[in-house]
Amino acid sequence: MADPLRELLELVRTGAIEVDAAAARLSGGTVAEMPFATVDLSRQARCGFPEVILAEGKTVDWLLEIVARIVGAGQDCLATRLNEAQTAALAAAHPTAEIDRLARTFWLRQSAVEPRGDVLIVTAGTGDLPVAQEALVAARALGSKVERIADVGVAGLHRLLRHRERLTQADVIVVVAGMDGALPSVVGGLVDCPVIAVPTSIGYGAAFGGTAALLTMLNSCAANVAVVNIDAGFKAGYIAAMIARR
Amino acid sequence: MADPLRELLELVRTGAIEVDAAAARLSGGTVAEMPFATVDLSRQARCGFPEVILAEGKTVDWLLEIVARIVGAGQDCLATRLNEAQTAALAAAHPTAEIDRLARTFWLRQSAVEPRGDVLIVTAGTGDLPVAQEALVAARALGSKVERIADVGVAGLHRLLRHRERLTQADVIVVVAGMDGALPSVVGGLVDCPVIAVPTSIGYGAAFGGTAALLTMLNSCAANVAVVNIDAGFKAGYIAAMIARR
Amino acid sequence: MADPLRELLELVRTGAIEVDAAAARLSGGTVAEMPFATVDLSRQARCGFPEVILAEGKTVDWLLEIVARIVGAGQDCLATRLNEAQTAALAAAHPTAEIDRLARTFWLRQSAVEPRGDVLIVTAGTGDLPVAQEALVAARALGSKVERIADVGVAGLHRLLRHRERLTQADVIVVVAGMDGALPSVVGGLVDCPVIAVPTSIGYGAAFGGTAALLTMLNSCAANVAVVNIDAGFKAGYIAAMIARR
Amino acid sequence: MADPLRELLELVRTGAIEVDAAAARLSGGTVAEMPFATVDLSRQARCGFPEVILAEGKTVDWLLEIVARIVGAGQDCLATRLNEAQTAALAAAHPTAEIDRLARTFWLRQSAVEPRGDVLIVTAGTGDLPVAQEALVAARALGSKVERIADVGVAGLHRLLRHRERLTQADVIVVVAGMDGALPSVVGGLVDCPVIAVPTSIGYGAAFGGTAALLTMLNSCAANVAVVNIDAGFKAGYIAAMIARR
Amino acid sequence: MADPLRELLELVRTGAIEVDAAAARLSGGTVAEMPFATVDLSRQARCGFPEVILAEGKTVDWLLEIVARIVGAGQDCLATRLNEAQTAALAAAHPTAEIDRLARTFWLRQSAVEPRGDVLIVTAGTGDLPVAQEALVAARALGSKVERIADVGVAGLHRLLRHRERLTQADVIVVVAGMDGALPSVVGGLVDCPVIAVPTSIGYGAAFGGTAALLTMLNSCAANVAVVNIDAGFKAGYIAAMIARR
Amino acid sequence: MADPLRELLELVRTGAIEVDAAAARLSGGTVAEMPFATVDLSRQARCGFPEVILAEGKTVDWLLEIVARIVGAGQDCLATRLNEAQTAALAAAHPTAEIDRLARTFWLRQSAVEPRGDVLIVTAGTGDLPVAQEALVAARALGSKVERIADVGVAGLHRLLRHRERLTQADVIVVVAGMDGALPSVVGGLVDCPVIAVPTSIGYGAAFGGTAALLTMLNSCAANVAVVNIDAGFKAGYIAAMIARR
Amino acid sequence: MADPLRELLELVRTGAIEVDAAAARLSGGTVAEMPFATVDLSRQARCGFPEVILAEGKTVDWLLEIVARIVGAGQDCLATRLNEAQTAALAAAHPTAEIDRLARTFWLRQSAVEPRGDVLIVTAGTGDLPVAQEALVAARALGSKVERIADVGVAGLHRLLRHRERLTQADVIVVVAGMDGALPSVVGGLVDCPVIAVPTSIGYGAAFGGTAALLTMLNSCAANVAVVNIDAGFKAGYIAAMIARR
Amino acid sequence: MADPLRELLELVRTGAIEVDAAAARLSGGTVAEMPFATVDLSRQARCGFPEVILAEGKTVDWLLEIVARIVGAGQDCLATRLNEAQTAALAAAHPTAEIDRLARTFWLRQSAVEPRGDVLIVTAGTGDLPVAQEALVAARALGSKVERIADVGVAGLHRLLRHRERLTQADVIVVVAGMDGALPSVVGGLVDCPVIAVPTSIGYGAAFGGTAALLTMLNSCAANVAVVNIDAGFKAGYIAAMIARR
Repeated sequence: MADPLRELLELVRTGAIEVDAAAARLSGGTVAEMPFATVDLSRQARCGFPEVILAEGKTVDWLLEIVARIVGAGQDCLATRLNEAQTAALAAAHPTAEIDRLARTFWLRQSAVEPRGDVLIVTAGTGDLPVAQEALVAARALGSKVERIADVGVAGLHRLLRHRERLTQADVIVVVAGMDGALPSVVGGLVDCPVIAVPTSIGYGAAFGGTAALLTMLNSCAANVAVVNIDAGFKAGYIAAMIARR
Repeated sequence: MADPLRELLELVRTGAIEVDAAAARLSGGTVAEMPFATVDLSRQARCGFPEVILAEGKTVDWLLEIVARIVGAGQDCLATRLNEAQTAALAAAHPTAEIDRLARTFWLRQSAVEPRGDVLIVTAGTGDLPVAQEALVAARALGSKVERIADVGVAGLHRLLRHRERLTQADVIVVVAGMDGALPSVVGGLVDCPVIAVPTSIGYGAAFGGTAALLTMLNSCAANVAVVNIDAGFKAGYIAAMIARR
Repeated sequence: MADPLRELLELVRTGAIEVDAAAARLSGGTVAEMPFATVDLSRQARCGFPEVILAEGKTVDWLLEIVARIVGAGQDCLATRLNEAQTAALAAAHPTAEIDRLARTFWLRQSAVEPRGDVLIVTAGTGDLPVAQEALVAARALGSKVERIADVGVAGLHRLLRHRERLTQADVIVVVAGMDGALPSVVGGLVDCPVIAVPTSIGYGAAFGGTAALLTMLNSCAANVAVVNIDAGFKAGYIAAMIARR
Repeated sequence: MADPLRELLELVRTGAIEVDAAAARLSGGTVAEMPFATVDLSRQARCGFPEVILAEGKTVDWLLEIVARIVGAGQDCLATRLNEAQTAALAAAHPTAEIDRLARTFWLRQSAVEPRGDVLIVTAGTGDLPVAQEALVAARALGSKVERIADVGVAGLHRLLRHRERLTQADVIVVVAGMDGALPSVVGGLVDCPVIAVPTSIGYGAAFGGTAALLTMLNSCAANVAVVNIDAGFKAGYIAAMIARR
Repeated sequence: MADPLRELLELVRTGAIEVDAAAARLSGGTVAEMPFATVDLSRQARCGFPEVILAEGKTVDWLLEIVARIVGAGQDCLATRLNEAQTAALAAAHPTAEIDRLARTFWLRQSAVEPRGDVLIVTAGTGDLPVAQEALVAARALGSKVERIADVGVAGLHRLLRHRERLTQADVIVVVAGMDGALPSVVGGLVDCPVIAVPTSIGYGAAFGGTAALLTMLNSCAANVAVVNIDAGFKAGYIAAMIARR
Repeated sequence: MADPLRELLELVRTGAIEVDAAAARLSGGTVAEMPFATVDLSRQARCGFPEVILAEGKTVDWLLEIVARIVGAGQDCLATRLNEAQTAALAAAHPTAEIDRLARTFWLRQSAVEPRGDVLIVTAGTGDLPVAQEALVAARALGSKVERIADVGVAGLHRLLRHRERLTQADVIVVVAGMDGALPSVVGGLVDCPVIAVPTSIGYGAAFGGTAALLTMLNSCAANVAVVNIDAGFKAGYIAAMIARR
Repeated sequence: MADPLRELLELVRTGAIEVDAAAARLSGGTVAEMPFATVDLSRQARCGFPEVILAEGKTVDWLLEIVARIVGAGQDCLATRLNEAQTAALAAAHPTAEIDRLARTFWLRQSAVEPRGDVLIVTAGTGDLPVAQEALVAARALGSKVERIADVGVAGLHRLLRHRERLTQADVIVVVAGMDGALPSVVGGLVDCPVIAVPTSIGYGAAFGGTAALLTMLNSCAANVAVVNIDAGFKAGYIAAMIARR
Repeated sequence: MADPLRELLELVRTGAIEVDAAAARLSGGTVAEMPFATVDLSRQARCGFPEVILAEGKTVDWLLEIVARIVGAGQDCLATRLNEAQTAALAAAHPTAEIDRLARTFWLRQSAVEPRGDVLIVTAGTGDLPVAQEALVAARALGSKVERIADVGVAGLHRLLRHRERLTQADVIVVVAGMDGALPSVVGGLVDCPVIAVPTSIGYGAAFGGTAALLTMLNSCAANVAVVNIDAGFKAGYIAAMIARR
């Protein structure tokens, strides 16, 4: 096997590359360091999108500071799972950002991107919409064209089948469902693209906070279904956009 | 096997049936489409009862709009698991509807139905009553005669056995129980009709929110016991009425 | 409330009924007593079908003796979950009985019954057949006409939809599915009869021995779906026949 | 086997016993019937103590009415798991009753009982006291002498061992513990009387609301340890008194 | 509080008690020490019965040696959960011991005990008999009179109710049940003595190896029911005898 | 919304399309029907790959017949999770098929495909190889170029980091890991392509048959990680190829 | 084996040791006894640190009294998991104590200790800081030098690797992580000291309140990782300091 | 913060360090690469002990090759969880290695180490010995002095307390227990050193394969108890030795 590390060190030794540049490549990137956070400023270069902030569990002050650092570095900034106080503070500090109250997201774009790839988001019920909206915001942030079809669960198949042609046109489909979580299996069997299934905590009793839907989706009899965490709309939109833009 | 699809297409080809009529039969039905919901307007024709609304997880605005669409289509409308705000809004918008605060249901009938079939609802304890009442409202909405016997759990068998004759007269019995969930097994062994068992989240500790009662019922030593989700009074009443009216 | 107990005692007091007859009505029935078993010989009168034997966990000797007692009482005898040794011993002792090796059942009929009611059994996959067959044997034993449709899981919807007309003709449908357990929700949305869902232990990994399918079915978005224990084909067939014959 | 039922019917037939008296013996008892409850008024005769009321899940009105019926029947009345509103209403309606705010119990005695049997209640921690107090109230209601030792968990063995002599004098010991639930095993190994173990929901993280302590106790390496539900102080005190008074 | 420790040390100081005797009382007892086991030889004095051996997980050699030590110390010896090889080896080494193959126990008595107390063991099904038999052997070893009633599960109540009088005569009742585990709640409501409930691993699917029955019993609506581990017949018999002999 | 159904029916009515062709488009496809299976013969057209056979739970006869039908229809045939007997029978019947004993797969190609897309499969440990190999066979069957890197778990990071450049070249990476399942999070943070994570049942104790790894992966702090069922190598390879070939 | 007990008693007998001193050694220590608590005053002597108070589940009055007793005995006093009311009351009563609102701890030192040992605390995310801070306070209370590195989770490896040298200098490392809990495995593979892993309840959905992270850590592929309870920062800091000071 | 990476690169640039040496430091080490494994040959340098082989899930051929590579690199080699075939093959290939059949380990030492640190291993029962022996072998391999005390569970406290003095002398104690897992809490309260608790799968029923003991230990009321995976004797011995030798 070729050894890129040795090759790089040879370049250093011969002066063909600066120590700083070599360090940057070797270290994997730079950070913004605070007493309470270490923001990964090279995530964009490495993974194609800046670090995304999970607002849950952070104080308003911490959140404001972290956002400020990312924005200050000239990067796009997406934050998810905002509560009321966090939303208000971010809105005040960044009046030009897009805040989506259904999705509970903050989105501040500093780059220009040409939309690429066709992501379709489908929900089984109306109650799944907040999670679906989080997926939509995330996929758009990553540069995809996104559309949403709501409330087409399997107990009334014709609600879904009337969209059959639209389904076959997507590059990737995100299916959001709580309760029995059966929709991804049905959608998966109708198309030849990947399906990202998002279980939601919608339901009661033996839904066990989305666990039932999660298990259904993991055991899907359709082979093209992959799964993300319960209520993880953001993650589904992120992966979907990543697939769609290839 | 005969092929009904080809037969229908032949009728289209020969003009024996209109395109619209054929489309209706093939598509499986019509819908009322909103940005947040796709109401199945042909559920009544296909399944014998209109789509029922799970209020939980819906905003008041969404709920009002969905109800308006169903009612506007001339269909009966049942909604379950209402919270306070939803109840108030629906009561204001539909003053003639029946609102049951114990069952947390909204019921607006636009059709006339002759009651058919005898559904008996039995609870193990007093705390199981809200779930039992939801079952009662649902079974009545579907057109059954329904009676309720409360608080006859197995720790005082004579409380149940004094109703033995009544039990044997029912077409189907819904048994609602939390804690140990033992009542359906005992009732099941006394009668020759189906028993629909509803576990409730009544109890504490190792009741695990109704899981204990659910497992008890699934493992019932009586062969005529089928089970629905924890606290799913609506579903039990629905199925019971469906069985009773055959 | 009328008091049937007092009325009966009055009859005893006045001699209008024999002590033996009164005792029989009050006791709820007779039994066949062995050191290891107490067979309920009045189950047929009370519940419409004789006691069914769960062979699992019984020695061959115990099983033979229990079967002999039921048969000796002139009753039909159904035993389920037979292992190899039990099957061989029962086949030798009762050569006229029907033994179904796929269902692992023993069935000895001593009564003549006119089939009544139309039970349809549908499986999601081929591996679900043993459980489906147990349901079929049980429903036939209880006097139903039964048909079976195999391997029409939701990943290829047309496999199911070509049977749509047949589905709408049944009095009750038993749906047997492992893995994601999504089929009952789809079937439930197509018909106006009760659906008895049977989760099976077919699957691997996060199927958790049928738990995933069980949860899916309990959370079904179709309101006409009731559930029995994992792999409980017998129970599903039993309840289905009980519903179908009403 | 002798047949007590036939013997009783013979007495009825010959007039040696009244129909009413025979009915009472056969029915297993009388009830107080309300639309929402069926109070078992013969529990005292049959089980040695009147029906105890679980207040949780009952409206204040229901609770007041049920208590009134039991008290009106001249029976002692114990209610557990009272919330604030229930406590206030009961205190107002029954000023002579004993209300224990730590135990969250209501206790109205109408009988005179000579204390019998020595019940010792031991807690692992201070946080286990509310559950222990519920046990104490229940055991006293059933007529036992009761003492309590608090906060002698196994991480400081000498705290427990200084009570070793006292431990060996009890007729039965109730051990209340959350977190690791280890105390019953240690106590069980020091004495020759039964130990009733009560897991509590005290703890955090992998305590899983008392599940960890419950499992510990079920798997106790001491053979004289039986277990009740998580936080079921009432039940532990009840059984302990029942054992102690034999 | 009086301080028994100081009192004992004073006796040592004044020579009123020998060092050896004082050491024995303080240490809590003597042991038989092997490289693989530390047998508690003072369990009998402290807890009223010698240490009982759980054979599971021990090699035949270890088991033989441990039994030899207990027997050599002149104590009674009970071993449970024997496999085939262990049974054969123990039978060969101790030809006078009682070996119960249904219970899988070894029992060698060296003391004479007058039976005391009336323990009744009741099973829900035939498959619960091995566990019930282990309880029976244990209770007899501890010196109780024991009787067994088999297969009187709640689906045929009259099977149980014909024993109602017998039930009310027992000092304590052990109820052994798998599947739905409902029997202890029913028995508990019929009697005024403690009920020790033993869940068994009999059942399939959502019985989850006895977990369903365990949860049912922990949540029993009868207040006089305490629970032991799944399949823990030994422990139930042990505690029952301890209660009965008081 | 345009209505493709009506448009198609218009074509039928005007004779612009044959009834047979219209029926094929409407029905969603054709099947091969056996008493025990309904093979979906239009899966290839609809989803891009023929139906794949899960051999587990099928008799050898069933399996042979199903394979024969697919092969007879001129389609490629992939079967997974073969046991010994199934492998032998298939090898005998189809000597030209590729059988992979590590992956436990059968693969018979009848089409010619130009490899497209670069799938990289990475395992955390040696024990994960059978699952990884199943993924490899599946991805190759779907037409991808596939490479495998084995045993580069996170406890020795340099094992992984020496492949960093190779990782960044893949179109999609399948990461297979048991035990702590931590590898996908680390890989996900190094690349800008989707990562399909496969938990395996490798591990012991609290690995709970792969559940620990499954949960780790669902909660991955890297946003580009989607998950499939435990040991579902086939599914991961399938989805990966589907992504890679876009 | 030498018998220290007998030796001590001989000393008593010969008067070489006082009864009081012997009692103290034998009893294992002294306590402060209240009606609701038994504080272990010899924990410091026996275990190297005074009893630590878990404030959760204690009333303010109980807590104040317990703290007063420990402080009154001249011992250091640490209390954890304080709520608002408890914090205010303790701050008022003990103005010189250190109260850490992030860690929710109370710390009153009465002894002078020379810091010993180097404990490093590392968190995967910002939301893990409260738990990490509790660990920090505990380790300092036990006399360690402690440093904290925040938010260096594995999705951005360079954030961690830039601290590689610092990691190798610590005597013990506490790693605090929620969500996927992957960080301890990575850290463990970089160092030759013990790693104490603390799962936190940070995360959502299938994080199941920290259970996912807990399982990840228990199954760590790094052999030097031991685990404490979810959110048990105190315990981790305690053990770490105990290791570091050896 | 100082930047060791840049410093190293400066050394390369100035020729003060060879490219090879710099590459070794940067890469984190070397590996032995096979098609099925990537052995970490610098684990010893980095973590203080060579990579240990988990034999479970590896073919005999794979295992032999991996062992050969480690031994060939002149490193010590420890393998755990060997089955019969693996044991036989390794014994034949490496006749001088120590094979422990109770621990199921293979141990081949090529280095000379002076034992350092005092590790004490304590088991609750005899059945816990295989796991304890694995811990013993591991701790010895890492260079500790190790002793073992067997079968001193808490139901007979004096069995443990007679070793009290020995307990206080250890540098670290490994406590191995199944069933109720209570022993670590008791031991933890007696000493001032860290306790590593190992739950075992010994037990039945609600022991759930060691889960009960695991939860007990995680919730230990003694603050000095850290936990490893169920049956993870190796890991406990490894960490214990690492602590003891500091």
